[in-house]
Formats: sequence, C-alpha cells, structure tokens
Amino acid sequence: MYMAIKLNDRYISSFVSPSELESVKSQVSAAHGLLHGRSGQGSDFLGWLDLPENYDKNEFARIKSAAEKIKKDSDILIVIGIGGSYLGARAAIEFLRSSNYNELAKDTPRIYYAGNNISPSYLNEILSLCEGKDISVNVISKSGTTTEPALAFRIFKELMESKYGADAAKRIYCTTDKSKGTLKKLADQQGYETFVVPDDVGGRFSVLTAVGLIPIAAAGCDLDAIMAGAGEARNALATDNLETNDCYKYAAYRSILNRKNKAVEMLVSYEPRFTMMAEWYKQLFGESEGKDQKGLFPASAVFSTDLHSLGQFIQDGSRVMFETVVDIKNPDKDYFIKKSPDNFDGLNFLSEQNMSAINRKALEGTILAHTDGGTPNLVLELPAVNEHEFGYMVYFFEKACAISAYMLGVNPFDQPGVESYKKNMFALLGKPGFEAEKAALEKKL
Amino acid sequence: MYMAIKLNDRYISSFVSPSELESVKSQVSAAHGLLHGRSGQGSDFLGWLDLPENYDKNEFARIKSAAEKIKKDSDILIVIGIGGSYLGARAAIEFLRSSNYNELAKDTPRIYYAGNNISPSYLNEILSLCEGKDISVNVISKSGTTTEPALAFRIFKELMESKYGADAAKRIYCTTDKSKGTLKKLADQQGYETFVVPDDVGGRFSVLTAVGLIPIAAAGCDLDAIMAGAGEARNALATDNLETNDCYKYAAYRSILNRKNKAVEMLVSYEPRFTMMAEWYKQLFGESEGKDQKGLFPASAVFSTDLHSLGQFIQDGSRVMFETVVDIKNPDKDYFIKKSPDNFDGLNFLSEQNMSAINRKALEGTILAHTDGGTPNLVLELPAVNEHEFGYMVYFFEKACAISAYMLGVNPFDQPGVESYKKNMFALLGKPGFEAEKAALEKKL
Repeated sequence: MYMAIKLNDRYISSFVSPSELESVKSQVSAAHGLLHGRSGQGSDFLGWLDLPENYDKNEFARIKSAAEKIKKDSDILIVIGIGGSYLGARAAIEFLRSSNYNELAKDTPRIYYAGNNISPSYLNEILSLCEGKDISVNVISKSGTTTEPALAFRIFKELMESKYGADAAKRIYCTTDKSKGTLKKLADQQGYETFVVPDDVGGRFSVLTAVGLIPIAAAGCDLDAIMAGAGEARNALATDNLETNDCYKYAAYRSILNRKNKAVEMLVSYEPRFTMMAEWYKQLFGESEGKDQKGLFPASAVFSTDLHSLGQFIQDGSRVMFETVVDIKNPDKDYFIKKSPDNFDGLNFLSEQNMSAINRKALEGTILAHTDGGTPNLVLELPAVNEHEFGYMVYFFEKACAISAYMLGVNPFDQPGVESYKKNMFALLGKPGFEAEKAALEKKL
Repeated sequence: MYMAIKLNDRYISSFVSPSELESVKSQVSAAHGLLHGRSGQGSDFLGWLDLPENYDKNEFARIKSAAEKIKKDSDILIVIGIGGSYLGARAAIEFLRSSNYNELAKDTPRIYYAGNNISPSYLNEILSLCEGKDISVNVISKSGTTTEPALAFRIFKELMESKYGADAAKRIYCTTDKSKGTLKKLADQQGYETFVVPDDVGGRFSVLTAVGLIPIAAAGCDLDAIMAGAGEARNALATDNLETNDCYKYAAYRSILNRKNKAVEMLVSYEPRFTMMAEWYKQLFGESEGKDQKGLFPASAVFSTDLHSLGQFIQDGSRVMFETVVDIKNPDKDYFIKKSPDNFDGLNFLSEQNMSAINRKALEGTILAHTDGGTPNLVLELPAVNEHEFGYMVYFFEKACAISAYMLGVNPFDQPGVESYKKNMFALLGKPGFEAEKAALEKKL
C-alpha cells in the first residue's frame, strides 16, 4: 500500500453541507468526462494526464546522464526560464532539499534562476556569484523568443563562450521545441544537447517533463521515485466517484466555496520549504482559472510565521477567503525539546517532546480558531517529504486544477491574457512590427 | 531638495473620478485629526509618529557600537523574532543590500532568521549552517514569552553557552521591554546588553526602533540616512492637504477602491529585492485593517516574474483587485545590452541600451494592459534604492496605513485576532491555566 495525499474535510462541515457536495456530483462527472473524453476546451494540451506512464524513456535516461555530468563538472547550474519553465523545478528543489539549498549543497551544484525577470540588479548579482566558478546552463524555452529568458541566455551564452571557448557547447543544455524555433535551431548549429518541451503539455503542467526534471536531477533528487508517485496518483485519481477520489472532492469544494462568494483561496503550510511549491500552485491555478472575469484568486502563506502578519486578517478581517492547509504529517528532520533545569523561560510545558508535535498543535489550534472566525478550512494531508509524495502531489494538484477549471466553465489550458503586457512592452520597445501600437500607447503614458 | 516617494495617479482616472476624491477629503481630514490629535482608537501606540526625531540618541549610539562588534567578531548573526520583530529588519536588509545578501556578504555577517516558525527542519538547517562559525544572537521579543522566539532562544542560548561558556553573554543582544518581562529579567541576570521595544510602538511599526535597527546596522546599512529619510517624510507628510500629501492621497484612493468592491490590493514591484518589503507591507496593512470583518486583503507580486504566473488572472480573471505598483526609478546597478553581430536570437531591437530601460517598458506596458483589462493601477514612484529612500518609504507606508484604518473605521493599532490561535495552541499543548479549553478543543479535532 502506498501513501498519498488525503483530503480531510472535517472542518468544512459548518460551511458546506453534504447535500451541497451531492448537488455538484454531476458537474464533477461532467468535468471528468470532458477531461478523459478529451472533448473539453484545450484538449490539445492533455499530455500531462498520461505523462507518468507515457514519457520518453530514452530522453529520461539522457536527463539523468546530463544531471550526473553537471554534478561532476559544475559548481553552479544556471537555470534560465520564466513561469512554468522554472517554477516547478525550483519548487521541487526547495521542497525536497531545502529552501536553503544553495547554502547547504555539498555534492550538487548551487542553482541560480536567471531569465525570470528584467532586473539588472538581480542579473549583476548572479553574475558576481558565478565569478571563478565552473558553470553549466540549462535554458528552458519552447520558442526561444520569450524576452526574459532569451535576454538572459544571450548574456550567459557570451559568458560561457568567453570562459570555455569551444567547450562551452558541452555545458549548455537546451529544453525546447522538438523540431522548430529559434532555440532549437541555435542548439543544432552549436551542438548543444537538447531536450523536449512536449507540444501537448503547457508550461504550468510541465514539471514532470525535461522542463523540470533536469534541474531537479542536478539537485540530487530521485527522478524514478517522482515518476512512480505521479503514476500512482494517475491510477488512484482516475475515477469520478467523489467518495474515493479526494482530488475531485477538493475541486468540488473549491467550486462550491467560490460560488458562496469566496474570492480568495489561501494555500497554507507549516514548513518554509513549501514556499515555492505554493508559488508553483499559484501559477497552476491562477493561470488556469483566472479568465473570463472568473476564478479564485490564489494566495499563500507559511505558518506560524504569517500568523504574525496575515493571521489577524484571516481571523477577523473581510470574510473573502478560505484556506487550504497542507498538513505535512512527518517532517524530514525533527528536534527534541529538552527540559530546562530552572525553566527560566516558563517553556517546560513544551519540553520532553519533538518540535513537530508543537508545530502540529499550532496547526490544529489555528484551524479551529480560523474556522470559529468564519474562514472555511480544507486540509490536505501529505504523508511525508520525499520524491514519491512530491510526484503524487503534483499530479493531484494538476488534475484538481483541470477539473476545477472545467467546473468553472473556462478553458484550463490557455492563457490569452499573458500576451497583453508582452504586446505593449514590445510596442514600447520599438520591436519591428509593432509600430502602429507604439504611438497610441505612448500617448497614454 | 530631497527626493521622495510620489504618487502617480494618472492611470486611475478611468476608475476613480476627481469628484470621488473630493468627496472623501473631509474623511481624510477627520482621520488626520484623530491621528495628530491623538484622539483616535489605539492612541497609546503613536510613538512611531515622532520617532524620526524623538528617538533615544544614547541607545542609537549603542546600537551602532553593538553592530560594529557583531561585524568584527561574528560570521553569523542569528535574529530571533516573529512578525514585526523580524520582518522590518529582513525587508530592509534584502531591499538595501540584496535578496542574495547571505551569499554576497563580505565584511558583514551572514544573517539567519530563527524563531519565526515551529518547523524542526528549518531549525536543523540553521543549526547546521552555524557549525564551526562565530555567532552572535539578537533576540527580539517585548515579553520574552511568545512561543516561537522563546523556543528558539532556549535552543540558541544553550548553543552559545556550550560554545563560548561565560563569554556567551557578550554575544547575546536582547531587544525587549525597558523594565519588565521574562526576557528583560533574564538579560539583567545574565548580563546581556539590552535595547528597548518602546511601549508606544507596536510590532509592525517598530522597524525604526532597536527592533529593526540592530540587524540592519549589522548588515552594513547607514542608520543615520534611514532616520534622516524618515524625518523628511515626517515633515513632508504632516499636512492634510490632499493636493500636496501623496501619502494621504494614497490612503484616500485605497478607501475609495475598497468601497467600489475591490477586495484585494496587490503590491507590485519589478525588483526581486523588494519581495520582503512587500511581506513587511502585508503585515502592516493586513494586521492594521483586517478586523471587524473589514479590510483590503494584502497580496504581492514581483514582475515580470509573476506576470508569467499571476498575470493571466490580473489581466482577465475575477475583477476583485487593484494594483499598487512600486516604480523604482533607478536600480542600484545597471547592465548594458550589447548588439549581437549575427542577431541569432532576434533581440537586437533591445540592444544598445541599459536593461533598466527594458524593465521600465515592461512596467509601462503592463500598467496599460492591466488598466485596459479592468484592474485599477496606482503607482508609487521611488527615486532610488538607498537608506534615505527606505526611511522615507517606511514612514510613508506607516502613515498611509494609519489614515487608511481610521477611514475604514477600525483601530489601526490593535490585533486581537492574533490571540485566537495562540490560545488554542496553548490549550492543546497542555499549558497550565488552559485546562478547561483543552477538552473542548480536542473534541472538535
């Protein structure tokens, strides 16, 4: 028997009645039908659904070899990508290894993420951290033309060539389209090793492809266990029976709470290492649902830290939100609190137990307090922090997101709104082809 | 002439009319009267208002000396505190130095933040990063009994004593009540140097007291410039004339937008180093306004990074939010984009200019796109990244927050809701005095 995420919906009962859940069953089944019948909007992008089984085994082996080479010959791996092209990898590495990964890394390279912003301060810092170090670069872009990563790659390509000459090509790994585009063309010319962003997997669903797996493997994580966990989720979450499918039940509750005028879902954990997982989650749900003037606004917090910043609002502010609490049942390391002989701080009532037991009481006490205050709480119980559970969780959230979006009545797999800022930016920058827009926009500034 | 934050309200004009602003003038004046007349709710906590002038000059000198000693004798400074007791310092250090401060620090100690959560994984990591290093500890707690920092201090006190014996006391700095409480008593017994959390300054308003200033100085920042900047804000923002007081005008727009059914304010910047400033801001506004079932939910993002995660939602999802964009006019370092001889990536249209110019076009293009999509945008123009502007900005936001909360009709300076989770946690942990609640709570779990 494997372990898996479970939905604990005990605390939601004063906000959502069993009959409400019953009444959306047919909607869940309809969404399930759209997804598995591949008949819903965006059905060209369902590659993630079978990815845990139907992935390219040869490429998978090449990913592992590339990661081994990077571990051996590099102090630093620069991961160039934006949005889904870096968030999944970063989330995995911080969750599975540490949010202090770089400072703790011993047998694996430090990893810096470039090309996800246009800040010159940020770029200069990363360049200075690279001084005197051996470097590899993994650039991740379907087309190769997205401004942020393309600009960063131009800079790092030059750095690598001036440092390594002709050998630079052996340290540059491209994750891109299988056959076309600027980056693929360049890679073939220069002899960079290439990996594939599949045509049928959108960026925010791509962490279990080469997009996420190269950096994750370079950080020393076990890819086989990740894929096995995702595969188990694929099997376990294939039914539309709400009684046994916690993924669908979670989607159903989200849909009900949204229609009860909750505008914000806050994903909460009690482990700082979950911070970037929540950022990954925010892209997944925000970009899938936030369209046609609909969708739950995705927010996140790490407790008990943020109980001392956002806690007041959640307890007693505008009743606009519900919380989804990720309850990690077992931390990767514990700490035993000893008794103090003189009890100078009055904390002996906490002693003679593991710190995780105290963190658990904080979680339980907070759920009860927030529920009393009128903020509905759903709980997702995660058995442990490891690759297997990570893979399961990724698939769980991806599928919950697709079902949620179909229930909301939107295409889960497009992101037309992301183009708007790009178009304006290109026009203002004077990109050829955008001349007409330029003048109109400049008048508004 | 000094520089200062300015509000650019050009883009809000299609969402808020001049007459709407006119119609809340008297409310702004009333809030101003409550604040400066010290007649509003929470008026025992107005110490922050005159802090830039009325601070303890002797203690200020001691803070600088302590920071110099820490810089000389320590590789690592452990800052123990939660909520307002660490967020301001961390925000300042990441904003003024870098979000990669620890990896870049040369003549100043690495700084780790402990006691802001109950995660044993997090604690174990910090302990392992301390191995073999020279350490100082700054513990920040008004009472000394807040669970998270008290527990962390118990552990680090033992570590320091086992490492330094009787000399440990010379490496422990306590920021606490001036005369009473567990921590003050212990400090006096053990001979720790103490600094004061003033009685009339709440945690989220305390960054310009010893609470924030010791770590900020240890990171090599110029305290005099910070206080001078705050002092200038105090003078510049003392009038209730909306035409000249951008701080009050910002509060007025917030209030208007909230009453037009905006539930979420998203604080946006284009610099990753602003990330923790936004966390500080979220506590300041969330804890001050989020009560009596009222308040704008505070969220944040860093662009262009998050345009590829939350951008779709902001452009085209539920129309629940407005954005406040912090426009940093000059980055601390720039980067010149050179022309590529073969233009392999098609990016030469971006070349022959500084990267900051491109970041600026992204900002302008995004404001126009989001405004077109129906998301109101306010812009706060920050002239530069330096101590002076930091001090000004802190005071600007603190005062905007107080005026906002009075306009909302809540006490800006209390946080009664934060006690709820603590009470439940204590009961579940079996703290003496909470026996009655324990059984009742356990039944609900």
